[in-house]
Amino acid sequence: MMFNLSPYFRKLETRCQKIESNLCIGIDPDPDKMPPKLGTGAEGIYSFCAEIIEATADSAAAFKPNLAFFESIGTEGWHVLAQVLEHVPADVPIIIDAKRGDIGSTARHYAKSLFEKLNADAVTVNPFMGHDSIKPFSDYADKGVYALCMTSNPGAKDFEMWFDLYIQIAKCISEWNTNGNLGLVVGATKPVHLANVRNEAPHIPMLVPGVGAQGGDLEMILAEARHHPRHKMLINISRSIMYASQKNDFARAARKSANAYRDRMNQLMNAR
Amino acid sequence: MMFNLSPYFRKLETRCQKIESNLCIGIDPDPDKMPPKLGTGAEGIYSFCAEIIEATADSAAAFKPNLAFFESIGTEGWHVLAQVLEHVPADVPIIIDAKRGDIGSTARHYAKSLFEKLNADAVTVNPFMGHDSIKPFSDYADKGVYALCMTSNPGAKDFEMWFDLYIQIAKCISEWNTNGNLGLVVGATKPVHLANVRNEAPHIPMLVPGVGAQGGDLEMILAEARHHPRHKMLINISRSIMYASQKNDFARAARKSANAYRDRMNQLMNAR
Repeated sequence: MMFNLSPYFRKLETRCQKIESNLCIGIDPDPDKMPPKLGTGAEGIYSFCAEIIEATADSAAAFKPNLAFFESIGTEGWHVLAQVLEHVPADVPIIIDAKRGDIGSTARHYAKSLFEKLNADAVTVNPFMGHDSIKPFSDYADKGVYALCMTSNPGAKDFEMWFDLYIQIAKCISEWNTNGNLGLVVGATKPVHLANVRNEAPHIPMLVPGVGAQGGDLEMILAEARHHPRHKMLINISRSIMYASQKNDFARAARKSANAYRDRMNQLMNAR
Repeated sequence: MMFNLSPYFRKLETRCQKIESNLCIGIDPDPDKMPPKLGTGAEGIYSFCAEIIEATADSAAAFKPNLAFFESIGTEGWHVLAQVLEHVPADVPIIIDAKRGDIGSTARHYAKSLFEKLNADAVTVNPFMGHDSIKPFSDYADKGVYALCMTSNPGAKDFEMWFDLYIQIAKCISEWNTNGNLGLVVGATKPVHLANVRNEAPHIPMLVPGVGAQGGDLEMILAEARHHPRHKMLINISRSIMYASQKNDFARAARKSANAYRDRMNQLMNAR
C-alpha cells in the first residue's frame, strides 16, 4: 500500500535520507549544566543553544526544543527561543516539544502560537483531553503533530498504563489521522510497549525519547526501527549530546556525541 | 477531623469569605470577540484584560488567566500577561491555567516559570504523565496545584473516562497530597462525575469550569457546593463574563455579569 506523505513527514523523510540519520536532537538548555563561562542568563542560554545547533546540525534529522527550558527564563523566554530557532538550517524540521492540550477553542490558540508565531514544523501534544484538544493542531495539514502515548518517565505507569490506555491512544490517533500528519511519542524504556503500539498503529510515525540519559536501550529500539523508513522512527537524544562536556569544548563534544549516535544508529539499522 | 489549610488554600479561603464569593473569573482574551475599538494587537489585549480585571475584582474569589490566549500573541505574550497580572489586587489569588505536564526534570522548569517568574498563586497541571510530572509543582508547598481530572469538553469521553480513569486520578491525587496543596479540575457538564470524584477524594478542593458558555448546570453544581466551604469548590466562568458585551461598555457589562453570577451562586448556596 502506498501513501503520499503529508508535507511535514515529506520534509522529515527528505532530511533523514539526505544525511542518513534518524537522530532528533533535543534542545533543553539547563543553566545548571551549561559551561559556567556562559552564565545563567538569557544571553548565555541563547549562545549555548545556538552553538549546539550549529555544531550538531550535520547529523540532525530534526531539532526538538522543549518549551519548559525557555519559559523558565521568564517573560523573555519565548523571544530567546525564536532567536535560537533562526540558527536551524531551513531543511531541518523543528519539532517544538510543548505537550499542550486544552479544550478545542483554547487549543486553537496554542496551535496558532506554535505553528504561526514560532513557526514549528511539528509539535508534541498531550492527548488526555481527547479529540477536540488535538484536532486544532492536526487541522494544520502541512504541519506534524506527535501525541504522547507511552512516555519514558517513572510516572508513565500511573495513568498511561491504566487498562492499557496507551494502546487505546494509539488506536484513536490512527483513526483521527485524516490529514496523515499525526505521530506518536513512545518512550524507549519499555520494548514491549513499543511493539504493542506498532501493532495497533502500524502506519503512524513515532518519536522515541528516553535513549541516553534516561536509560533507554538503543539496540532494542533500532532492532524495531530497522523495519521502517527512517522518518517513521525518529530517536530523540537530548542530555547525552547537549551536556557531553560542561567545559568550554561543549560544542565540539556535542558534535562528536551526535555523530557517534548517528553512526551507531546506522550500524544497528543496517545490521539486518 | 480538622485540617490546617496550606498557604494557597488559606489565601483562597480568606478571599472567598471576605467577599462571599466562590466565583473564579477566567481571563481568556480572544481578539475576535473583543470590542473592535481595541484592535487585535498586544496593546489591545492588555487594555482589555486590565479593564476586565479592574471592573470585576470586587466579585472575584480568584482570577484564572489561560496561557494559550497570551501565547497566541507571539513572543511578547508572556510579557503582556505579566503586565496584566499587575492589575490583580494582592489579596486575590491568581490561578494560571497552563495545563503543563512533562517528565520530572522538565516539569521543574515549568513549575519555576509559573511560580517564580509569573508569580502564580496556583496552576493547573495535566496529570497524564503521572506522579513525577506533578511533584515538582506540589513541592512548592505555599502554592496550589489543580490537576485535570474530568474536563468539560466533548473529548473528555475519549480517554478521561477510559475505565473510569478520572476516578483513579482523583484517588492518586488524594494519596499524593502530602503538602495539602493539591486540587482537581472537574467540569460542570456531568453531575454524576462530580459526585464520583467527591466520593473518591472528599478532602480535595475542586476547580469547576464549564459553567456558562460551555453549558454546565449552575444549579446542579451549587447543590453540591452547598455542602462544602467556598474555597473547596471554586466555580470558573470565563466567556459569559468577559464577552458579556462586545461594545464599548464591555467592562461595565462584565462587572454586571460577574456580580449577577456571584449573587445567583450565593442564592443557590444558601438554599439549604
